[in-house]
Amino acid sequence: MLVVMQAHATEEQVRDVCRRIESLGFKAHPIPGSTRTAIGITGNTGAVDIGSLESMPGVVECIPVSKPYKLVSRDVKEDDTVIRIPAPAGDVLVGGQAVALCAGPCAIESAEQALTIAKQVAATGVRLFRGGAYKPRTSPYSFQGLGEPGLEILAEVRQRFGMAIVTEAVDHESLDLVEKYADVIQIGARNMQNFSLLKRAGRARKPVLLKRGMSATLDEFLMAAEYIMSEGNYNVILCERGVRTFADHSRNTLDLTVVPAVKRRSHLPILVDPSHGTGRRHKVLPLSRAAVAVGADGLLVEVHHEPDRALSDGMQSIVPEEFCQLVEEIRQIAAVLHRSVN
Amino acid sequence: MLVVMQAHATEEQVRDVCRRIESLGFKAHPIPGSTRTAIGITGNTGAVDIGSLESMPGVVECIPVSKPYKLVSRDVKEDDTVIRIPAPAGDVLVGGQAVALCAGPCAIESAEQALTIAKQVAATGVRLFRGGAYKPRTSPYSFQGLGEPGLEILAEVRQRFGMAIVTEAVDHESLDLVEKYADVIQIGARNMQNFSLLKRAGRARKPVLLKRGMSATLDEFLMAAEYIMSEGNYNVILCERGVRTFADHSRNTLDLTVVPAVKRRSHLPILVDPSHGTGRRHKVLPLSRAAVAVGADGLLVEVHHEPDRALSDGMQSIVPEEFCQLVEEIRQIAAVLHRSVN
Amino acid sequence: MLVVMQAHATEEQVRDVCRRIESLGFKAHPIPGSTRTAIGITGNTGAVDIGSLESMPGVVECIPVSKPYKLVSRDVKEDDTVIRIPAPAGDVLVGGQAVALCAGPCAIESAEQALTIAKQVAATGVRLFRGGAYKPRTSPYSFQGLGEPGLEILAEVRQRFGMAIVTEAVDHESLDLVEKYADVIQIGARNMQNFSLLKRAGRARKPVLLKRGMSATLDEFLMAAEYIMSEGNYNVILCERGVRTFADHSRNTLDLTVVPAVKRRSHLPILVDPSHGTGRRHKVLPLSRAAVAVGADGLLVEVHHEPDRALSDGMQSIVPEEFCQLVEEIRQIAAVLHRSVN
Amino acid sequence: MLVVMQAHATEEQVRDVCRRIESLGFKAHPIPGSTRTAIGITGNTGAVDIGSLESMPGVVECIPVSKPYKLVSRDVKEDDTVIRIPAPAGDVLVGGQAVALCAGPCAIESAEQALTIAKQVAATGVRLFRGGAYKPRTSPYSFQGLGEPGLEILAEVRQRFGMAIVTEAVDHESLDLVEKYADVIQIGARNMQNFSLLKRAGRARKPVLLKRGMSATLDEFLMAAEYIMSEGNYNVILCERGVRTFADHSRNTLDLTVVPAVKRRSHLPILVDPSHGTGRRHKVLPLSRAAVAVGADGLLVEVHHEPDRALSDGMQSIVPEEFCQLVEEIRQIAAVLHRSVN
Repeated sequence: MLVVMQAHATEEQVRDVCRRIESLGFKAHPIPGSTRTAIGITGNTGAVDIGSLESMPGVVECIPVSKPYKLVSRDVKEDDTVIRIPAPAGDVLVGGQAVALCAGPCAIESAEQALTIAKQVAATGVRLFRGGAYKPRTSPYSFQGLGEPGLEILAEVRQRFGMAIVTEAVDHESLDLVEKYADVIQIGARNMQNFSLLKRAGRARKPVLLKRGMSATLDEFLMAAEYIMSEGNYNVILCERGVRTFADHSRNTLDLTVVPAVKRRSHLPILVDPSHGTGRRHKVLPLSRAAVAVGADGLLVEVHHEPDRALSDGMQSIVPEEFCQLVEEIRQIAAVLHRSVN
Repeated sequence: MLVVMQAHATEEQVRDVCRRIESLGFKAHPIPGSTRTAIGITGNTGAVDIGSLESMPGVVECIPVSKPYKLVSRDVKEDDTVIRIPAPAGDVLVGGQAVALCAGPCAIESAEQALTIAKQVAATGVRLFRGGAYKPRTSPYSFQGLGEPGLEILAEVRQRFGMAIVTEAVDHESLDLVEKYADVIQIGARNMQNFSLLKRAGRARKPVLLKRGMSATLDEFLMAAEYIMSEGNYNVILCERGVRTFADHSRNTLDLTVVPAVKRRSHLPILVDPSHGTGRRHKVLPLSRAAVAVGADGLLVEVHHEPDRALSDGMQSIVPEEFCQLVEEIRQIAAVLHRSVN
Repeated sequence: MLVVMQAHATEEQVRDVCRRIESLGFKAHPIPGSTRTAIGITGNTGAVDIGSLESMPGVVECIPVSKPYKLVSRDVKEDDTVIRIPAPAGDVLVGGQAVALCAGPCAIESAEQALTIAKQVAATGVRLFRGGAYKPRTSPYSFQGLGEPGLEILAEVRQRFGMAIVTEAVDHESLDLVEKYADVIQIGARNMQNFSLLKRAGRARKPVLLKRGMSATLDEFLMAAEYIMSEGNYNVILCERGVRTFADHSRNTLDLTVVPAVKRRSHLPILVDPSHGTGRRHKVLPLSRAAVAVGADGLLVEVHHEPDRALSDGMQSIVPEEFCQLVEEIRQIAAVLHRSVN
Repeated sequence: MLVVMQAHATEEQVRDVCRRIESLGFKAHPIPGSTRTAIGITGNTGAVDIGSLESMPGVVECIPVSKPYKLVSRDVKEDDTVIRIPAPAGDVLVGGQAVALCAGPCAIESAEQALTIAKQVAATGVRLFRGGAYKPRTSPYSFQGLGEPGLEILAEVRQRFGMAIVTEAVDHESLDLVEKYADVIQIGARNMQNFSLLKRAGRARKPVLLKRGMSATLDEFLMAAEYIMSEGNYNVILCERGVRTFADHSRNTLDLTVVPAVKRRSHLPILVDPSHGTGRRHKVLPLSRAAVAVGADGLLVEVHHEPDRALSDGMQSIVPEEFCQLVEEIRQIAAVLHRSVN
C-alpha cells in the first residue's frame, strides 16, 4: 500500500499520516520525491483500512501495490535515487549524472599490496576503493581474508588517498566491523538471500552495495533490496555480476539486459562488476564499455599490480595500466550518454 | 593430503600420527573405515613434509588429494557413512540399508496444526518430523516463521510422538536455538554458501541436513559439506531439492542424476526433497518414487492437513492420505533395491 | 477450436461436421475417444463461425481452446493415446499398460556390429531396436553414419529378429528413406524445431518419435508435436532426453518432472532416454529405474557390445549384460505401477 | 592438421600442396592471409603423413590442430575475415573497420509494408535490409511467411533502394530460392544444428549469416560455422541473438561476452541481434549501444513502421524514428572504438 501526498502537503501532514499508519500497527516509510512525498506502508499482510487514511489532510490517494516489492519500486518513488557516499577527497554520488567507478584488489593481502594499488587507482581520479577483508570462498582451505586487520588497512587507504571504502560483510559479526571501518557495506552474491544478514544491513547507517545472486531473477533481486529498505536503510546500490548459465566461455554470463530492466522498475542505482561477471582479464575492458553503454550507473573493477600472484581471483584482475585505459574509454562512452565519470 | 594407515595399525599409532600432523600446524581428521583408518590433513595451503609422516609406524602411504574436497570424498572414506539420529521411539539411521522418510509441514503455524499433522505422519511409522520455525522467504512481508515458540512446539511433537525433529537454522542465533531443541539442523538452499553459518554448523554437535543451492554445481555442493566437516562435524546429510533452469513446467528442475553422482564421489548420504523440487502437489508422488528408484537414501516431504490454508508453500504440500499412499509405494520401490523404509 | 460430438453421434454426423469445417476453409481432425468423438479445427487464425457448427446434428458444443496447442492436448482427447508399432514378432504398443523398451547401438557401424547387438537385445524379449544410420554430429569431421546401407542393415535386423526398427531422419531426403525402411521415424533433439522436417514427418504414414530439444520448454515440445499432428499424423511418441543446464556432473540434466507434466496436458505417450540424458554409463541403470518409477511409457537405451570401440557415444552405452539387469529391474519397478514390460 | 606456407611461397607451390593433400584422400582448404597462406586439411579422422607434406617446396611446417574446429580458427587464419556483400548502392564490408547495420521488419508482410520500411531504413544510410519470407514459428497456426512472393518483394526492395538483402532459409527448398533472390543467406537459431541445411549452405555461393542456437556453447556455435566452411563457403558471419536461461525479465539473455570470446578464437565477424536478444522494444537501443561498445562488427535490428500491427514479433520491433536515433548513437559509440558505421 502506498499513500500519495499532495504536492504542497506540509511536513506536519506527512508526519500525521505516518503516525496514523503506525497506530494501525504498520510501518510507515515516507519517501520524498521531487514534486511530492509518497508514504510506503509495510507490515500489512492483510488489508489496510484505506478510508481512514484517504480522508486525512494532504493525502491525494491510496494505491494498493500489486508487485511484491514496494519500497524499491518506481511506483513509490519516480525519481532516480542518488546515493551520497562521503569520502575525504569529496563525496561520491552514485545514481546521478556521473558514472561511478570503484576499483581495487579482490582481497586485501597486506598493507603494502593495498597501498600500492590504491595509489595507482587514486591517480586515475577514482574515489571509490574496493577490497575484501572477508572473502567467501568455495573451499574452506582457500584464503579467507585478513579479517579486521584487513579493515584497518582499508582505513589507512581512506586516510592516505581520500577514497571511500567498499568492502564485504559475510555475517553479523563482520558487518558490525565493516560498518565501523568502511563507507559502503557490500553484500555478496552468495548472501543475496541471507535474509538475516539483509535485515542487519537494513539497520546499518551506511549505504549497502547488494550483488545479484548467481541465479536470482529480477524480482528476487529487488526483493532482497526490499528486505534492506524495509528495515529503514534506503541507501541501496544494486550490482549485476553475472549469472550462472550453461555457457562455458566465461565464468558467468554477464546479464546487461538487467540494467534497463532495473531502471524501468526501480529508482535504485545499479552498477556492473565486469571482473566477476566474466572471470577473464581480457574481457574486462570490452564488457566495461558495454556496461556503461547500456546505462549502468558505475563499475566495480578488480585491479591488482601483480595479478598472477594474487591470493584470489587473479585471473580476472587487470593491472593498473589497463585500468587507466579503461577509465579513459569509459569517459568517452559515458559522454555519448551525456554522463561524466567520477 | 591423506595418510592411509595399515589395516592392523593400533589406536596409539593413529594418535601419534595425528599429533605429528598437528605439531606441523595442520588439522588432523582420523576417519575410521571398515578395514583401515585414514587421516585427512586440512589447513595445508602449501606442501606438507610427507617424508616425516610416511616413515612413522603404522603408516602405509601419504596421498596428495587432487580434488578440492577431502573429508567428503570417497577417496578418504570408502564405506558409506551411516548417520544415527536419536529419536525417543528408536534411533533413525540415514545412509544405511533403510530409506529414511522425513515428513511434516513447510512451516510450524500453531501447536494444533503441528500436532495434527504429526499424529498422522507418526501413524505411518515415519520417525523423522520436519517443520520450519525460521522461514527464509523471498519477501520481507511474508510469514517468517514463529521462531522459538515454533521450536517449542516441535519439542512437544518429539515428546508426544517419539519422532526426531529436523528444522532449519538461518543464522548463528537461530542455530543456537535449533541445536538446543532439534535433532537435525537443516541448512537451506539459500544458505548453502553462507560459509559463516556452515562453519557454525560444523561446530554443532548434532547432524546437519545440507540442502543443495539453487545453482550449485556438484563440486560446490560437496565443498559446502566440506566446510561443515572441516570444523569437526562429520554427520552431514546432503539433500537435492531441485535446481534453477529455463524449464517452466515445475518450480525447480529436480536433478535426480546428482544422486548416483554423489554416491560415486562421496560417502555421505543424500536425500531428495520432491516437494520443493517440483513445487506442485501432483508431482510429489511420482518424483518420490523416482528418487527412491534412483538410489536416494531418503525423502523430505511436505505434508499438510489443510494445504490450501498453509501459510507457506501450500501448493506443494500433500495431504496425509496421499502421504500414506506415498509410504506404501516407496516401500515397494525400495524393496526392488533391497532396501526397507523407516 | 474444438467441436465435441454427442456420445451417440453417428459416423455420418461426424463426417458432416468435418465437411462443413472444411467448406469454411479450415482443416478438421476427428479424434475418436472412448465415449465420444471430438473434432479439432486448425487453420483458423481468426474466428470460426461457431453458430453454424453448434446447430448441426450430433454436436454438443464448440469450445475455444486457449492453449496454443490443440491436437496434442488432453482437452481434445481425454484418453491416453496408444500407438501400435507393427513388428514381425508381434506388434508393440506404446502408451498403454506395458512399458516399452527400445534398445540398440547409438550408430549402426556394420552388419556384424548391428546383428551382434540385436541378437543380445532380442534375447531379453525387447521388440524395439534402435540404431542411427544418419547421425547429427557436432563436428563435420566426426562419423556421420552409414546412410542407406545402414538402413539396409536395420532391415536385416528386423527380418532376422522380428524387432521393429526406430531410426533417425535428419532431412527430407533421409526421411523418405527412413519411412521406407524403418517402423518408427525418429526426429532428434537438434531438429525439434526444424519445422520443415516436422511437417514432412506429419505427412509420413509411420509413427514419429520426437525428442525434446536441449532447451525446449514443455510448451515448445508440445507445439513441435502439434506441427506433426497438424499435418495428419497422429502417431507421435514424445521422448525426454535431458536438457541443458549449468550442472556439469552429467552431460545433460534429465528432467523427469516433465513426465507427469506431459501426462497432465497431453494424451501422447512419453519415453525417456537415460543414455543421452546422462551421458555416463554408470548412470543409465539408476536413471532407467527412476524414469519408469516416475511414470514414463518406456525407455530408449543405448547398448553396445564393445562400447569403448563405438564410433559414437560409447561413454554412455551399456553392455548387453548390464541391459539384461536393466530389463530385470525395470520389470520389478513397472510392477509397482501395475505395468508390465514389453 | 594445418600446413603453413612460407611468406614468399608461389601460387603454384600452394596448388601443389593442395593436390598432394587431395591425392591422399583429404580435402584441402587454402586460406590466404596478409603475410602467408595456410592450408587447412579436413577429412582426416586418423593421422596424416606429415613427412611427405613438410618436405614439399614452400612449406614451413605442419601443425596438428587440437581444437575440434579448424577452418573457423584464428590458428588457421590470423587476420580478421572481412566479408564483401555486393549491393547496388555500393558493397558492404562486414568484419572490417566499419560497423555494419542491417535493419528491416521481422517478416515481409506485403510489398507496401516492406517498401515503406525500406525507404525509411535506406534514408539513414543503412545498406543491409533484413526481412523474413520464411518464418520458423513455434506454432503451426502462426503466420509462416509469404514464401517466394516475399522474396520477390525483397528483390524489389534491392532494386529500388540499392540495399543488399539478408533473409532466412529454413530448408533445402527455401535455400535454393533464397540463394537466387537474396545477397546473404540467414540460418536461424533453431536450425543452428540442422547439419543437413548447414552443409547445403556451405555449397551456396553467397555469404551465410549464422545465428547462435538458444543453448549453444561457443564450441558448438563455431562447429556449426565449421560445417558451412568445410563445404567450401568461407563467407560466414556469426550472430549472437540471446541464449535461454532462467532469467525472466527479457525473452532471452543477450550474451555479449561471447563477442570478445569469438574474437579470440576465430577470425570470423560477429553481429549482435538486440531485437531477438531482448524481445522488448525499450531494450533494443541500450543493448545496441552495448553491443557496439563490446566490439561487435554490426547489428541486426528489427524495424517496423506499425509494430503493434506486425504479424510477428511486434513487441521487439522499433519504429523508424527510434532507428534513426539508434544509428546516431551507434555512430558515436563506434567512434570511441575508432570505427565508422555503414
